[in-house]
Amino acid sequence: MIRFNCDYLEGAHPRILEKLTETNFVQTPGYGEDEYCDRAREVIKEKCGVPNAYVQFLVGGTQTNMTVIASILKPYQGVLCANTGHINVHETGAIEATGHKVLALPSENGKITAAQVQEAYDTHWADASHEHIVQPGMVYISHPTENGTLYTKEELTALYETCSKLGLPLFLDGARLGYGLMSKGTDLTWKDIAAYTDVFYIGGTKVGALFGEAVVITDPALTKDFRYMIKQRGGMLAKGRLLGIQFLTLLEDGLYEEIAGKAVEQAMRLKNTFLEKGYPLLYDSYTNQQFPILPNSQLKQLEEKYSFELWTAMDEEYSAVRFCTSWATKDEDIEALISDLDNLE
Amino acid sequence: MIRFNCDYLEGAHPRILEKLTETNFVQTPGYGEDEYCDRAREVIKEKCGVPNAYVQFLVGGTQTNMTVIASILKPYQGVLCANTGHINVHETGAIEATGHKVLALPSENGKITAAQVQEAYDTHWADASHEHIVQPGMVYISHPTENGTLYTKEELTALYETCSKLGLPLFLDGARLGYGLMSKGTDLTWKDIAAYTDVFYIGGTKVGALFGEAVVITDPALTKDFRYMIKQRGGMLAKGRLLGIQFLTLLEDGLYEEIAGKAVEQAMRLKNTFLEKGYPLLYDSYTNQQFPILPNSQLKQLEEKYSFELWTAMDEEYSAVRFCTSWATKDEDIEALISDLDNLE
Amino acid sequence: MIRFNCDYLEGAHPRILEKLTETNFVQTPGYGEDEYCDRAREVIKEKCGVPNAYVQFLVGGTQTNMTVIASILKPYQGVLCANTGHINVHETGAIEATGHKVLALPSENGKITAAQVQEAYDTHWADASHEHIVQPGMVYISHPTENGTLYTKEELTALYETCSKLGLPLFLDGARLGYGLMSKGTDLTWKDIAAYTDVFYIGGTKVGALFGEAVVITDPALTKDFRYMIKQRGGMLAKGRLLGIQFLTLLEDGLYEEIAGKAVEQAMRLKNTFLEKGYPLLYDSYTNQQFPILPNSQLKQLEEKYSFELWTAMDEEYSAVRFCTSWATKDEDIEALISDLDNLE
Amino acid sequence: MIRFNCDYLEGAHPRILEKLTETNFVQTPGYGEDEYCDRAREVIKEKCGVPNAYVQFLVGGTQTNMTVIASILKPYQGVLCANTGHINVHETGAIEATGHKVLALPSENGKITAAQVQEAYDTHWADASHEHIVQPGMVYISHPTENGTLYTKEELTALYETCSKLGLPLFLDGARLGYGLMSKGTDLTWKDIAAYTDVFYIGGTKVGALFGEAVVITDPALTKDFRYMIKQRGGMLAKGRLLGIQFLTLLEDGLYEEIAGKAVEQAMRLKNTFLEKGYPLLYDSYTNQQFPILPNSQLKQLEEKYSFELWTAMDEEYSAVRFCTSWATKDEDIEALISDLDNLE
Repeated sequence: MIRFNCDYLEGAHPRILEKLTETNFVQTPGYGEDEYCDRAREVIKEKCGVPNAYVQFLVGGTQTNMTVIASILKPYQGVLCANTGHINVHETGAIEATGHKVLALPSENGKITAAQVQEAYDTHWADASHEHIVQPGMVYISHPTENGTLYTKEELTALYETCSKLGLPLFLDGARLGYGLMSKGTDLTWKDIAAYTDVFYIGGTKVGALFGEAVVITDPALTKDFRYMIKQRGGMLAKGRLLGIQFLTLLEDGLYEEIAGKAVEQAMRLKNTFLEKGYPLLYDSYTNQQFPILPNSQLKQLEEKYSFELWTAMDEEYSAVRFCTSWATKDEDIEALISDLDNLE
Repeated sequence: MIRFNCDYLEGAHPRILEKLTETNFVQTPGYGEDEYCDRAREVIKEKCGVPNAYVQFLVGGTQTNMTVIASILKPYQGVLCANTGHINVHETGAIEATGHKVLALPSENGKITAAQVQEAYDTHWADASHEHIVQPGMVYISHPTENGTLYTKEELTALYETCSKLGLPLFLDGARLGYGLMSKGTDLTWKDIAAYTDVFYIGGTKVGALFGEAVVITDPALTKDFRYMIKQRGGMLAKGRLLGIQFLTLLEDGLYEEIAGKAVEQAMRLKNTFLEKGYPLLYDSYTNQQFPILPNSQLKQLEEKYSFELWTAMDEEYSAVRFCTSWATKDEDIEALISDLDNLE
Repeated sequence: MIRFNCDYLEGAHPRILEKLTETNFVQTPGYGEDEYCDRAREVIKEKCGVPNAYVQFLVGGTQTNMTVIASILKPYQGVLCANTGHINVHETGAIEATGHKVLALPSENGKITAAQVQEAYDTHWADASHEHIVQPGMVYISHPTENGTLYTKEELTALYETCSKLGLPLFLDGARLGYGLMSKGTDLTWKDIAAYTDVFYIGGTKVGALFGEAVVITDPALTKDFRYMIKQRGGMLAKGRLLGIQFLTLLEDGLYEEIAGKAVEQAMRLKNTFLEKGYPLLYDSYTNQQFPILPNSQLKQLEEKYSFELWTAMDEEYSAVRFCTSWATKDEDIEALISDLDNLE
Repeated sequence: MIRFNCDYLEGAHPRILEKLTETNFVQTPGYGEDEYCDRAREVIKEKCGVPNAYVQFLVGGTQTNMTVIASILKPYQGVLCANTGHINVHETGAIEATGHKVLALPSENGKITAAQVQEAYDTHWADASHEHIVQPGMVYISHPTENGTLYTKEELTALYETCSKLGLPLFLDGARLGYGLMSKGTDLTWKDIAAYTDVFYIGGTKVGALFGEAVVITDPALTKDFRYMIKQRGGMLAKGRLLGIQFLTLLEDGLYEEIAGKAVEQAMRLKNTFLEKGYPLLYDSYTNQQFPILPNSQLKQLEEKYSFELWTAMDEEYSAVRFCTSWATKDEDIEALISDLDNLE
């Protein structure tokens, strides 16, 4: 069985395991206060062009989302996000468990717009009963989105400007950030991501690390006592060095971009194949997730050899599915799949 | 600098890194539903003599404590524990953040007794205003305790019987379980730990793993939807296999006991040295944490070469400190310390 | 200014004030354990045909909703309700503040159907990732709804049967229950309300009391320690007798039905006037809230003499507004309004 | 049976009921935005000498405590208070239910000192692991305390100065404030209470109102969006006027002081009787709560005619009990009790 279900099927890039092995018996302080974390922080700040940013490392995405969001919002505030946003649909109510409502905005492709944020804000404050309604307190976006789509620089700057004007911190979930940055379809750089958000994270789990997300806070107002929040929410890894070592390995000499770029390239080969064969795509993704629509009969044939995720039934006969590539996808597996797509009946 | 501050200074036992490397490109399902986790579950159940137990793997201790406790208590219930208990003092209010009061019982050495639990229960229910008071809903103990002490079999069974009689699930925090089980001072076995608690966890982070805690639930009433809780609290690792692989390596052929036993032996050498030199011990520990009381002048000398933790000032001149050994402690470091203790002025 | 904004503009029915005055110096135990509360409980159980029900009194609606819901749900569960439901839109996130997601279902008129509940349930459990998604744990409906609409007996029994089958407690918010029961458009009785829900409340605040909601729990599984929840959520009134006295006065000899019936009748006079004049109604309400659509120019004329609530702008020229009658509405005010409607330009 | 159990046994001062009756059919906006509330706000600000203070009315004490505290603390902060404080022992964990730890300080008589606050603060920040420990975020005191004791002006100003220096808002629970202000044993005035706290409340429930607590926030940094918090926590009364009317009646012409003063005087007569008879007092209270220690045999005699609260057993033969007077206590009941105390065997 060749798996394309998701982008966390394997362990980590071998250089990470090597580095962990190499440093294994070095004694370091715990909780992210070691030299590897410090060096990784420097690399990140340099790469993102934000020398004064505040960087902390957490273990996973849900944990990071709930920690960041709970650290920003006041008790009666909620977080604006696309109705498709991970925090709204796939985190078992982790945000609500911290006491906050997720204020979902309609979205067809996983993205929301500056205009939607402005409207939600205006609607709230125009309501004579606004004290009876959850107050919008920040904005959450994912980039790439859960649908593989990307914000353009114009869209992101518009969002950021609107958020800044309205006093709503903009938080970018970059669980798959590498696949976005290396997409052919993007005009956003590391520096743009840092410049046009208040806080974002660099996903490690899905881009070559065993696990780990690096939170970068560029708005100094949001950093105070953030480590208390990490500890309280269960995200402070005792051996924090493991996170520092991994991000250092990924980021200090371009490994992150290299492996993400490769995965995107493989995804583009799949995308082209789907398009050539005439399969429509549910979302027009230029990242590592592809969402073709196939007849169920053909999906059944593919399932004998490949695993992938059923996304949604389109009708009785057709379904949209998701194929993911990742830093670990083998060219030979892509080729096998392309070849088998050629021969579907 | 030779560090004895804590038991999470290094990475992991080399066999764990080897196993992670060896399995690195195997594709597995995520979230702890892979074969390594399944095999680790079987090993644990076999070792603990609880074939029907329910086993899940989490990343760290605070996360595990808050997830287990929040899954058991009703909103108006609290958890009884020693005032020295980790959840009461060192988790930044993680339990309270889930909405529950920690009901602290006085303790001199980190342990609480069946009689204290019975009394807290009786006091609550005897109060005419009990509806205005947080209801005791479960009991938390750590073994070894934060002070290095151990429950005897008699004490643990008494606690368990009292808890069972009162309908209060007994939860044992085994962050350092290995060091307890391998202590010369214990009459408790793996099977006893499983038999005389309702839920406990086997600490990995402090006993040879990179990270990870294996929760074992023996009371079937406490297992329902537990994985929802893990996900909601940010504890469900995407690459859950990492936990399965680590616990399998540690537990399938005695590595866990071997490395924990070695660390306890080293701690005993330190303990004997302290006693021989006439240093009093704050707690009478037979595990990997030792709490000698030394003059501050001598501590200053030691600090030039060693790091350890200041536990508490006894008076103007003397302080209690903590020395930890671990699975990674080198015999040569123990010998150096012993020799330097011999030569303190 | 004659106000039709809402149904809590005045104090209380005079008989309530008389009864409070009459009993003022009687000494009673606090917290709802007095004889007035007990007698009110008996009257309610008798009236609803549920001799074994459990009855408690709370002060207000938001408080009641959050207390009941938090007492039923497990931490990872959410409450299904119409997207228009009070808990979803007008309680400042009170439910989320207890840690739970509100699972909003689309609704045009404030009601949801058994089929929607079934589908939400099926969708959840059919999802392979259901552990990553908030689990539906109960169903909340309001009757009358926030839009003045009513469930039919057929609809309510279908909902109840579906909920019972799926193990989802059905909670009916009866903040305006009296206006529903006395509507010409209903085939539901007190006994039906009690028979086809697991827990509901009888609204006092909007139907003649100074304040107060009487929670009736008919499913014995939901009563355990409910008073702890009330106290913890700040809903346990020290002088609980005030609630008992009010509900006793309202319910023991038909006052509640009398005043609610009168208000509905007045609302029907308004409704007929709107219809006769050719004003469309946003919702087809047979209760005390009416939602006519008028030209903004005419609304401006009305605003000189009357206050009412802007509900929603239909387009540039027309708006839907809300007129409420209540137990305190004067016939002369209704007549004045009808007459002025006749003369609008 | 003559009851001295507590200070909320009866309804309200008759002038309150009269005023409620008189205003009953006036139509007002809801939620505390009516003219009665506004006038009561003015009276309070005038009386307390804080023209710029922010005043809101809530229904009960637990609700007020949790709303104020949750509005001030950040998620990882706790509230310092006496271990005897109401929020620590008698509110079913309402504070913890908002996610915050109550940081209890030892107290013999219900009071805490500036030195204790300073020490708790210093201890926290001196700890190298302070990020793992709940951060002190504010201070809660009650005045009079749960034990009937009172802060002196010197003690309160010292507390306030320490709190201000440390950045910890000082919150005074004045559920029984009237009985404190009218005590012969106090040197604190209304203006002092307002001047030496950041937020406090004037208790209505126990001092002549049907219910209600008036929160006075003198630190402008604590007022932002406070009404959202009230609504979210279920404390925003629909007919907010009821609170305004009551506080206006109590405060506009000295009724509050008059009835509180009378109750304290009655309590002093009891106190003197106990002392004359040689009964020791558990706490030296100059307010409406008295805590004499009597032989159980005599308590049994008293119980035939009087009810009072068992406070604590002193030993096998003696118990401390609580007698409360209130605004509603009759002189004849005091005289009967004194006479019966004279004749105890």
